[in-house]
Parts: sequence; structure tokens; C-alpha cells
Amino acid sequence: MKTAIVGSGFVGRAWAISFARAGHEVALWDADPAALPAALDYIATVLPNLAAEGLLGGQEPGAVLARLRPTAELAEALAEVDHVQENTPERVEVKRQVFQDLDALAPPGAVLASSTSALLPSRFVEHVPGRARCLVCHPINPPYLVPAVEVCPSPWTAPETVARAADFMRGCGQAPLVMKREIEGFIMNRLQGALLEEAFRLVADGVAGVEDVDIGLRDGLALRWSFMGPFETIDLNAPGGVRDYAARYQGIYEAIFPSVQRRVDWTGPVMDAVEAERAGQLPRDALDERQRWRDRRLMALLAHKRRAATDIGQ
Amino acid sequence: MKTAIVGSGFVGRAWAISFARAGHEVALWDADPAALPAALDYIATVLPNLAAEGLLGGQEPGAVLARLRPTAELAEALAEVDHVQENTPERVEVKRQVFQDLDALAPPGAVLASSTSALLPSRFVEHVPGRARCLVCHPINPPYLVPAVEVCPSPWTAPETVARAADFMRGCGQAPLVMKREIEGFIMNRLQGALLEEAFRLVADGVAGVEDVDIGLRDGLALRWSFMGPFETIDLNAPGGVRDYAARYQGIYEAIFPSVQRRVDWTGPVMDAVEAERAGQLPRDALDERQRWRDRRLMALLAHKRRAATDIGQ
Repeated sequence: MKTAIVGSGFVGRAWAISFARAGHEVALWDADPAALPAALDYIATVLPNLAAEGLLGGQEPGAVLARLRPTAELAEALAEVDHVQENTPERVEVKRQVFQDLDALAPPGAVLASSTSALLPSRFVEHVPGRARCLVCHPINPPYLVPAVEVCPSPWTAPETVARAADFMRGCGQAPLVMKREIEGFIMNRLQGALLEEAFRLVADGVAGVEDVDIGLRDGLALRWSFMGPFETIDLNAPGGVRDYAARYQGIYEAIFPSVQRRVDWTGPVMDAVEAERAGQLPRDALDERQRWRDRRLMALLAHKRRAATDIGQ
Repeated sequence: MKTAIVGSGFVGRAWAISFARAGHEVALWDADPAALPAALDYIATVLPNLAAEGLLGGQEPGAVLARLRPTAELAEALAEVDHVQENTPERVEVKRQVFQDLDALAPPGAVLASSTSALLPSRFVEHVPGRARCLVCHPINPPYLVPAVEVCPSPWTAPETVARAADFMRGCGQAPLVMKREIEGFIMNRLQGALLEEAFRLVADGVAGVEDVDIGLRDGLALRWSFMGPFETIDLNAPGGVRDYAARYQGIYEAIFPSVQRRVDWTGPVMDAVEAERAGQLPRDALDERQRWRDRRLMALLAHKRRAATDIGQ
């Protein structure tokens, strides 16, 4: 299929890798022409690492790179395109204009998807004539390493658009979460926010340290979540499944609920404690190096999950 | 060291594996004498699987099994013991009596730890003469596969007791979360509860399906959490670290907060939808088989994490 990346910064270039890896042609465009060579340079450095981890499906990096085509004009990027992925700045007035332009220039059959993490689609597609083909496909960056993608319709998105976008994403090796309607924070930021809110509160209230919370996830809760998710986890955690779990253990969570109604300002006094503890674990000038470590660990984890799904079962 | 398992059911027998694997002598006791042969049989079936996954540290299953000793009398189990792990029923009057007995019978230098997940230690150690040596060490079951253990003091627990229990747990290959004070739900159930509460709400409100939530964790959020935890994840998710992250993104979470103040009864109408979707994924008569799959995947994940920590870095 033919795809276009509109906005080729941090998020757009990552999508380009995912689409091209799946065999799609990828036209890259950016309002800033200097962004395109930077994107191609970046992609050229990432592909050999993916190949080394077995995450290019046996393809040569050069073969994937050859599917990328920088374009000077937006109309050129959109010619005969099937899927457009928009990654422009997170400002509603920018997205409104961009979606007007995309709808005017892209062939009628193309799906127009935004990568926005912060804006509900209704806020920027309402007045677009082709709003039925517009929706959000929000990745966790980088999508070529993290499969989950939120597929979020606006009130006017056609069900067929949702189905086509989800199928396209599955074909790229992504794992779409197909939302039934839009909601602030989509799904993953709502779940992450609920957990982070409690994590900040535990530190602010002097119950636990930052590292203790991290241990609780990385050596505890997140192990099972990383291959089952929270619902399957509790479904397997009581003899009679999820209904039995809720009957047995809801009381524990009900008792906690009243004490989680108070917001903690993450940027307030608690941040001094959080940052001091993190800086003790990781000097601030080592953040870049640690990000590269994270990406290598993430690649190795994905390779492990594939092997385990084959050897032990999905 | 000499250890005692008081209550040899589901949780106690799992602790016995962790302690014996680390080279400790383990005396097993249970109010029901029939529980002891059942525990030993169970342990004998688990040890070869652990050996096969490289999770016995190169030891023969028989060598680990030989460190276990069933005892008919509690006093016999506690003779010369250094660490006692209590796993009796989750009823406060039971634990009050058991801790009186443990304190009366165990040598003065022994740490007395409860596995309780639901009861704060202050509720059952207040009137124990040796309450300074009593605390909670709460595992995620089974502790021989999941390293995280909450080490939770009562208001009267001596700091030295906390330090000794945490050191003992580290020596067993566990990862202690050392709490500064007791709180309902400890740390992990508070974090899990916050996320589950939002997960049930998303399903109840018709925003997402059960499987979509699970995808969001197992193919999204929990990947990074499973080797970094949530604080390190956000520390690496903004150029300037965790303070920069909070400044950039707190607004998203603040906007969500008002909509997460309403409890959903997990056992109410939403459970029909949750159970129906789970049963569609996994017939209810296949829960047992899937639990065995989960344990194999968990073992393989732990083996992967050890390799990755060595090859790529901790």
C-alpha cells in the first residue's frame, strides 16, 4: 500500500520505520524541508539495530530504506495514497488546518489518521468535509518497538474507517486498541495516569520511595501484565476466574478508594524528592545513554516475547 | 540460616521453595497435619520445572528438597530459627493468636514476618510483647517466580527488624519494597487497584473492551514497566528527565482526574460484560491449563530478564 507521513519529526519518522518494514511505500513530508534528510539519517541508523535483533523480519536495512521517499510538496506525498499518518505539532489550530488540507488533497479512498496524544479528534475534524474518514491512531513511541496503538474515532468517523485503520495497523505488526468512542487521555494515558497518580501520592505521603514503586512494577505487577494485561491476570488469579476474583478481593480496593481522591501536584514539593532519588540512581547527564539502554532492552524483550509465544503459546 | 514456614498452604509452600532454593533450612508446620505431605508433594513437582528453566541456580531439585523438614509441633519448627514466615488464614483473630504463640516460642533473635495481603500489621501485633520484631513481608504469589515483596512495618517494628527482613529477602533473590509506614493495600495493591479501577470504568462506560485494555498493557505500557517501573519510564520520556516530563504532561492527567472519582462496582453489571468477553477468549474450563501457561511464560520472562541484565545491563 501507499502511505504518507505528514510531519516527519520524532513521531513521524518512527511511524515511517513501522510502515516501511511492513512493505508499504512511505512518502515523507514536513513543513520544514530540513526535517526530511534528518529523518532519513535517523532511520538509517535505527534499521541495522532492528535487523540485528531480528526485528526487520529478515529484510535487509537497505530494502526497507528504499521504500522511503522524501517529498517537497504535500500534494506529491498524498498522490494515490491509502493511509495518511499526521504528526504535526499538538496545537488544535494546526491540526484543523492540516486536516482540511489532507482532506482536500488526498484521494477519496484514503484514511486520514492523526498521531495526537492530547487532542480529541472531534476538536479538529468537525468541519472537515471528509470527517468520516478521519480518526486518531495514537502510538506509544516508538511504534516500531511498542505494538500498541489507540484507534480512536470522532463522533463522525465511519465504522469502516475504524476497521480499515485497525487492519492496516495489524498489517504493520501493531496491536490496535479499538475504542468505541473518544475520551480525554484515550485508554493508555488514562490507565498510566491512574497508576502514576497513586505512585506520586505514595511518595508525597512518605509511604514509599521512588525506587520502591519501580521495584513493585518491574519485579512485581508488570511481569504478568507484560504478557497478559490486567484483566487476564485477575481472570487467572482466582479459582473461578474474574467474577470470583472480584467477589473475593473487591473489598481491598473499595477500602483504598476514599484515600485516592486527592490530587498531588506532580510539579510541587514531591518533585524535589522524586528528582533527587532518580538523580541518585541516574546522573542527569546520563539520561541519553540510559535511553539507548532502554531501547536495547525493549528490543530484547520483544524478541523474547515472540520466541515465548512460539515456544510456549500466545 | 534456619527458617520456619507457619501455615503450609498455597502461600507457605511457595515461600518454602524460595527459602530452600537460597540454601536455607526450612521447617514446615501447619495446624492441619495433612497439609505437610501435600506441600512437599507440590514442591517436588515444581522444583524440576524450575531447574529446567535455570531458576534453581544450577542446583539439583533433590538438594533443594532435602532442606525441607516437616514438623509436627510448632515449637519444633521454631527451634533455633532466624526467620519465621507466617501464612495462616486472613482473619485478624487468627493472626493475633499466632503471633502471640510465635513470639512466645521463637528464639529472641528471630524475625517474625506475616504474608498477609489484607491486614495491617498494627491490627495483630500491638499486644505481642516482642512486637518490635514483627512485620509484614507480603509476596505476589508465587514468590519463587515473582521477586517483589512488600516489607511493611507496624508503628512498633524496630528499624533493625525491617533491615534484617529486607536483607534476608534479598538473599533469597527477592526484591523488597521497603515501606516507611503501613497503609491499607500496601503499595502494589494500591497501584494495581488504581489501574484496575480505571480499567473497569472504561469497560463499564462503553469506551473500550476487556481485550483492548489488556492489549494496552501487554503490548504497550507494561513492556517498559516490566524492566524499569513507572518512574524510570517517565524519567526517560522527556529530554530533561522526570521534572521535565511532569511539566510537559501533567496537564493531560490533570484533565482526566475529575472523571476518575466515581467508583464502579466490579461485581455489578460490568462483570457480565467482562466475564462474557473473557469467557470468549478463554472457556471457563480452561482456566487451570491457562494458569500453567502463565507460569511457564513467567519463568521464561524471568530467564530473559536475567540474560538481558547480563548482556545489556541492569
